Amino acid sequence: METDFTLKGFRFNAVPAGVKKAGTERLDFGLIVSDVPANAAGVTTTNLVAAAPVQITRKNLESGICRAVLLNSGNANAYTGEKGRLDALELMRETAAALKIDPGLIIPMSTGVIGNPMPVQRMLGRVPDLAKGLKAESFMDVAQAIMTTDTVPKTVVLNGEAQSGPFKMVGMAKGAGMISPDMATMLSVILTDIKVRSGFLQECLAEANSISFNCITVDGDTSTNDTLVVLAGGASDAAELRENGSDAEAFLSTLKEACMSLARQIVRDGEGATKVVEVRVIGANNKENAARVARKIADSPLVKTAFHGEDPNWGRIVSSAGRAGVAFDPDRLDLSIGGVPIVSDGVLVSADWEKPAHAAMKAREFEVILDLKSGNAEWSILTTDMSEEYVTINADYRS
Amino acid sequence: METDFTLKGFRFNAVPAGVKKAGTERLDFGLIVSDVPANAAGVTTTNLVAAAPVQITRKNLESGICRAVLLNSGNANAYTGEKGRLDALELMRETAAALKIDPGLIIPMSTGVIGNPMPVQRMLGRVPDLAKGLKAESFMDVAQAIMTTDTVPKTVVLNGEAQSGPFKMVGMAKGAGMISPDMATMLSVILTDIKVRSGFLQECLAEANSISFNCITVDGDTSTNDTLVVLAGGASDAAELRENGSDAEAFLSTLKEACMSLARQIVRDGEGATKVVEVRVIGANNKENAARVARKIADSPLVKTAFHGEDPNWGRIVSSAGRAGVAFDPDRLDLSIGGVPIVSDGVLVSADWEKPAHAAMKAREFEVILDLKSGNAEWSILTTDMSEEYVTINADYRS
Repeated sequence: METDFTLKGFRFNAVPAGVKKAGTERLDFGLIVSDVPANAAGVTTTNLVAAAPVQITRKNLESGICRAVLLNSGNANAYTGEKGRLDALELMRETAAALKIDPGLIIPMSTGVIGNPMPVQRMLGRVPDLAKGLKAESFMDVAQAIMTTDTVPKTVVLNGEAQSGPFKMVGMAKGAGMISPDMATMLSVILTDIKVRSGFLQECLAEANSISFNCITVDGDTSTNDTLVVLAGGASDAAELRENGSDAEAFLSTLKEACMSLARQIVRDGEGATKVVEVRVIGANNKENAARVARKIADSPLVKTAFHGEDPNWGRIVSSAGRAGVAFDPDRLDLSIGGVPIVSDGVLVSADWEKPAHAAMKAREFEVILDLKSGNAEWSILTTDMSEEYVTINADYRS
Repeated sequence: METDFTLKGFRFNAVPAGVKKAGTERLDFGLIVSDVPANAAGVTTTNLVAAAPVQITRKNLESGICRAVLLNSGNANAYTGEKGRLDALELMRETAAALKIDPGLIIPMSTGVIGNPMPVQRMLGRVPDLAKGLKAESFMDVAQAIMTTDTVPKTVVLNGEAQSGPFKMVGMAKGAGMISPDMATMLSVILTDIKVRSGFLQECLAEANSISFNCITVDGDTSTNDTLVVLAGGASDAAELRENGSDAEAFLSTLKEACMSLARQIVRDGEGATKVVEVRVIGANNKENAARVARKIADSPLVKTAFHGEDPNWGRIVSSAGRAGVAFDPDRLDLSIGGVPIVSDGVLVSADWEKPAHAAMKAREFEVILDLKSGNAEWSILTTDMSEEYVTINADYRS
C-alpha cells in the first residue's frame, strides 16, 4: 500500500491545542493549505441541527474556491448558537491572517462533543505554530488530529491517469461510531493535484458519495457535523480535466475508489465492531426501495447483535425487511448468509442450514443477500455487528 | 396490589410442552377459555411479514366473537409459510375438539424464534391435558407460559364501576426486548367480565393502545407477532355497557389504565434495562410531529447508551431531534433532564448544569422534556437505557 501522502501544491500541519482538555499533548488541531486557490466541492449533513462549522462551510463552498481547511477534534462546535459561529469565524480570521489569505476561503471542520463552547483562547494561541509548521510531509499528522473514538487513522492514496497526464489523489477521514446511522461525525477531506472545474467536482463528489459514505448509512441520518470536502489544487502537470470521455471517467472512478476505501475503513473501525457485513438487497422494484430495506436490516440492533453472536438468526433479517415499508411477497424471498443459502422462495432450503451458516458468520467479513423478487434494482449497505464494547464506549464517551 | 386474577366466566391452564426444546419442564403452552362466547377485539402487527397465528387471528377476529386464546412461547411460528398456517390450524382444531367449540372462535398467539417449524406433534400431545386442567385460578400460569426473555410476568387487575354495576378487568402481557422498536414480540390479553359490543370494544382498544403500547414504540415498528386482544365475556352482574356517558368513560379509562400498566411493566423489564425514561416532546405543531421527534430520541442508541452511563450528554438528544425530519428552530429549544433545566431558548441555562443533571440521571426513572416551541401538541414515549447486557442477551438469544 502506498504511504506517500505528499501532494504537489498542498501542505499540512497539526498541533496539540488541548481542545477537549487543557494540557494534553494529543494532536487535535489541524490545517491543510493549498498553495493556490483550489477548486472545491462538498457534501454536508442533512441534520436540521447543523454545527456552526457546517453552516460556515456551506456558505464558503458557494464560491467553489478554497485555500485552506481548518480542523479540530474534541469539540464539535455544534448547538453552540451564535457564539459558536463567532468562535469559528474568529479562529478562521486568525488563521487567515497568519496565512495571508481571505478567511472566506477557509473550510472549518469540527468533531467531538456537542453543546460545549469551543476553548477558543487556547486554540487561538496555537494558530501561529499551526501556520508556521506547514509541511508537505505532515498529512498523517492531520489525519491523526481529527480522530475521536477512531482507533486508527483512515487514509487513502491513489494515482490516476487522465489523457493530459497523471494525477494523484489523497484522502483522510474520521468516524468510528458507525453501528447505527446516528452515531458519530464523519469528516473527510480528499485532495487532488489535477485541475477540475468546481461544478463538475461537485457532480462527481455527489455520485461518489452516494455509493460510498451513503452506503454505510452515514449520510442518510447524519450527525450535526458530517462533512465531506474535495479540493482540486491543479498543481499536477496534467491540463484541466475534460468533463467527458475517458478523462471524466478516470477522475470519477478514482474519486469513487477513494471514497469507498475511506468508507470501508470507517466501518472496519466501527465502535466496538468485530465484523463488517455487507447487506445486499437485490430484486427490488427500484433502488430507493432496495436501499430502504437494506438500511432497515443494517440498522437493526437485533440483527447486529445476532451478527455479533455469529448466530444465523435469519428471522430477524426477514422481520426487519418486513418493517421497511416496502411491498414484497414474504413467501417468495431468497436469503443467504455468508454464501450459505438459507431460504429459497420463502422456505428453508434444507434442515441443515444452521451449521454452515454459523460457520460462515465466524468470518471477519461476510455478505447477507436478500432477494425480494420484485424487480431488478439492488442496493448494498456496509454495516457492523453490535458488541457489548459498543455500549461501553458510548456510555462512557464524555466521562 | 391486588393479586386475585380470577374472573367470572374465564378459566386458564398452562403446561410444559417443550416448544423450544423437548423435555424441558418450563410452562410454554397456555389456554384461556371463556365459558360463553365473548365479544372480542384486537390489534395486530403492521409488519409485512406477519406470523401465521397473526394471519389467523385477524381472520378470526372478524366475527367479533371468541371462545378461547391458545398461546405458546419458544416458537413464533413466523415466516413458516403455508406449513406454519397448517400447524397453527391443526393445534386449534385439536383444542377445539377437546373443548367442544368451533375452532374459528380460537385466537392463536405465538412468540419466540422466527423461521423454525413448530414442534406440532409434541404440542398436540399436550392439548388434552391443557383442556382438562382448566381452572379459574390458573391465570398466572398462562402469564408465565408466554414469557421469553421476560424476567417477570406482567399482569394487571382492575375493578371498574359502570352505572349498571361493578366490573373487573384482568390482563397479561409479555415483551422484554423493548430497547428499540424492532426488538421483540409483544403479546397481551385483556379480559373483562362486563358485556361490551365488539365494535365498541374495538374502538376503545384502538384508543387505549395508541396511548400505551404505542408509546413504548412497540407498535410503530412491530415484530412479526405483536398482538393485543381484549375479550369481554359478559358474566358480571352488570348489564351490557352503554356506549356513551359515564359507562363508556368508566370502561375506556379502565382499559387505558390496564394497557398503560402493562406497557410500563414491559419497558421496566426491557432487555438489560436499568432505567426507564419518559421522553416528552412538547410545543410541537401537531401530535404526529411530536411523536416523530420523541421516537427518534427514544430509539437512538447514542441517547440510550448515554442514559445508561448517566451521562447528561444532551447534544445527542438535540442531534436526534434534528434528524426526525420535523421542522423547528434549533436556536429556540428548551430541554430539561430529570427536572434539571439544561437549555433554554437554545442556550445553556448556566455553567453548572452538568452536576445536577448527572445526579438526576442516577434515578431509576426520570423524564426528558424537549420543547420545540412550534405549537401546543405533545407526545410521550417510554424508553429504556441500553446496556452491555442488552447486547449479551441478544447475541446469545438462540444459542
